[in-house]
Amino acid sequence: MLSFSRVTIIGLGLIGSSLARAIRETMPTVRVTGHDADPQVRQIARAIDLCDDVTDTAGASVTDADLVVLCVPVRAMGAAAAEIAEDLPAEAIISDVGSCKADVLAQLTAALPGRAIIPAHPVAGTENSGPEAGFASLFRGRWCIITPPADADPAAVARVSELWHRVGADVETMDPQHHDLVLAVTSHLPHLIAYTIVGTASDLEDVTQSEVIKYSAGGFRDFTRIAASDPTMWRDVFLANKDAVLEMLQRFSEDLSALQRAIRWNDGDALFNLFTRTRAIRRSIIEQGQDDPKPDFGRSH
Amino acid sequence: MLSFSRVTIIGLGLIGSSLARAIRETMPTVRVTGHDADPQVRQIARAIDLCDDVTDTAGASVTDADLVVLCVPVRAMGAAAAEIAEDLPAEAIISDVGSCKADVLAQLTAALPGRAIIPAHPVAGTENSGPEAGFASLFRGRWCIITPPADADPAAVARVSELWHRVGADVETMDPQHHDLVLAVTSHLPHLIAYTIVGTASDLEDVTQSEVIKYSAGGFRDFTRIAASDPTMWRDVFLANKDAVLEMLQRFSEDLSALQRAIRWNDGDALFNLFTRTRAIRRSIIEQGQDDPKPDFGRSH
Ligand SMILES: NC(=O)c1ccc[n+]([C@@H]2O[C@H](COP(=O)([O-])OP(=O)(O)OC[C@H]3O[C@@H](n4cnc5c(N)ncnc54)[C@H](OP(=O)(O)O)[C@@H]3O)[C@@H](O)[C@H]2O)c1
Ligand SMILES: NC(=O)c1ccc[n+]([C@@H]2O[C@H](COP(=O)([O-])OP(=O)(O)OC[C@H]3O[C@@H](n4cnc5c(N)ncnc54)[C@H](OP(=O)(O)O)[C@@H]3O)[C@@H](O)[C@H]2O)c1
Repeated sequence: MLSFSRVTIIGLGLIGSSLARAIRETMPTVRVTGHDADPQVRQIARAIDLCDDVTDTAGASVTDADLVVLCVPVRAMGAAAAEIAEDLPAEAIISDVGSCKADVLAQLTAALPGRAIIPAHPVAGTENSGPEAGFASLFRGRWCIITPPADADPAAVARVSELWHRVGADVETMDPQHHDLVLAVTSHLPHLIAYTIVGTASDLEDVTQSEVIKYSAGGFRDFTRIAASDPTMWRDVFLANKDAVLEMLQRFSEDLSALQRAIRWNDGDALFNLFTRTRAIRRSIIEQGQDDPKPDFGRSH
Repeated sequence: MLSFSRVTIIGLGLIGSSLARAIRETMPTVRVTGHDADPQVRQIARAIDLCDDVTDTAGASVTDADLVVLCVPVRAMGAAAAEIAEDLPAEAIISDVGSCKADVLAQLTAALPGRAIIPAHPVAGTENSGPEAGFASLFRGRWCIITPPADADPAAVARVSELWHRVGADVETMDPQHHDLVLAVTSHLPHLIAYTIVGTASDLEDVTQSEVIKYSAGGFRDFTRIAASDPTMWRDVFLANKDAVLEMLQRFSEDLSALQRAIRWNDGDALFNLFTRTRAIRRSIIEQGQDDPKPDFGRSH
């Protein structure tokens, strides 16, 4: 039995369009309706036949939905939810894919009081955005974290979990606050640091931008991939998950200062010990199928 | 005309073994002799037929060489050079592949006074090390920076450049001090930051190591690749290029503080502007063939 038969996706960017493709590929009998605030995105979605139907208004997209998934930047979740409030069928479940969960849950609860809200976050993505960047296999082998509110109906949680299972994800349930702390370190802080170093590198006087680009294969290029991610999405994430991000940033800065001291005082042992410790984590990530074992991510050489 | 006919490689790890493979593939008439301080590495090198000959002592490896390339960790360069001083033919050129150049040049000049020393640094690598991690195409399409001392013989520089051209690299000449500043930002700082964040993530109390591993696909896993690099090599790099690394680290920390402030004060515009600016660099790196244009480095999904 499929958990849903009429799914509406609002926001047809990287994640929304990947979800549409994945549902149509793995559950061809489910009817997928899409909407996006951007007329150009709607036009592309129609041209590439992304959904069974793409509507011009948010309201029209949900009138017969049994699941609505909001796939818009996290600070736009409340507005997107408010737009569908009137047309949403009473039985429909509302979910989302936002990268932070406590703030989004608060927005959705305020906009849709009394509704069945089951937020989720597929931990998968690329540096690209927009409807053409998506692909059906994006969620395969990745984790999707469901963060139901304390009073959520377990049956509704099970149905949303089942959907993510079907598109290939492993599903985990977590408290929204804890989700935000975990993701602050595994996703938000890495992005913040990558954006920072790419900014630092482009502001130097003694090293030209063209040198930075030419010799980027020494490690820098890895950071530029992450720092090419969507500015709106990431601005929203840092503002919506401010406390956890600042907390992790504080710890990182302290650790960086310790390393700075070790370099200044030629403490080679301290450096060596840290550098040895960090190898083990990579090994576990590969063992657990969360990264490619090929050297250099399998880049062509 | 080939620039050299008998090349000796000392240190048969990732870079040394890649160079051996690349020379034998692109210049099959060149005789390649290898040596490594580690008996186990020598044994592997022989078993996989890495070189025409692998000698048990450093001295024996250089007796008839016209080029010797030191491929050992940067702080071991002086010792490796001292070991061959007696047996080195008068006409032979000494080169190396070390990741920092001013400190290495000083070491080599002290150990081999009056010799033709032409240091070089191929800006290419992976997170793996050892003789089995190397491959012939590692240098193809990457830059190799030659950093000759001020009084170097231009003919010797041309010969070393030609060798790197033959194995597929683009060659650039640079002053050693400037090299160290450029690489501090494009390679050393990225590694330092990656090591730090992986350390930070493994020391948290509220987030378990297993959570960090599970949800690493949100960005963190990218950093773990770099942070899996060889501890000895990187300890040496940070100590040997201390001043430039500390200078770049200082700038990075200032920029990170500014971003921290922007988050704390909800300055979304400052975040958005930086995140927009950093995208352009990625585009240039891809246009100049220094990274894979495929999303997510072409990782399989
Ligand atoms: N990218 C990732 O790696 C990733 C991973 C996991 C989760 N997420 C989360 O997924 C969500 C979407 O991210 P994405 O990467 O798919 O972004 P995206 O490619 O930029 O797509 C977002 C789409 O939503 C549209 N939109 C904005 N406000 C809207 C509204 N009120 N109503 C309807 N449509 C609206 C945008 O239109 P415009 O063209 O007007 O902006 C855009 O087309 C975010 O919450 C993000 O945090 C992202
Ligand atoms: N990895 C990169 O991405 C990269 C890129 C460009 C340049 N480089 C530079 O290339 C050099 C080699 O790095 P790598 O990645 O190839 O390291 P690696 O894989 O660890 O290999 C280094 C080899 O040198 C041996 N060795 C150490 N001291 C020696 C000595 N005095 N005489 C002879 N052999 C000695 C080591 O033996 P043990 O087993 O006893 O340690 C090891 O087998 C370093 O200077 C590094 O900075 C590296």
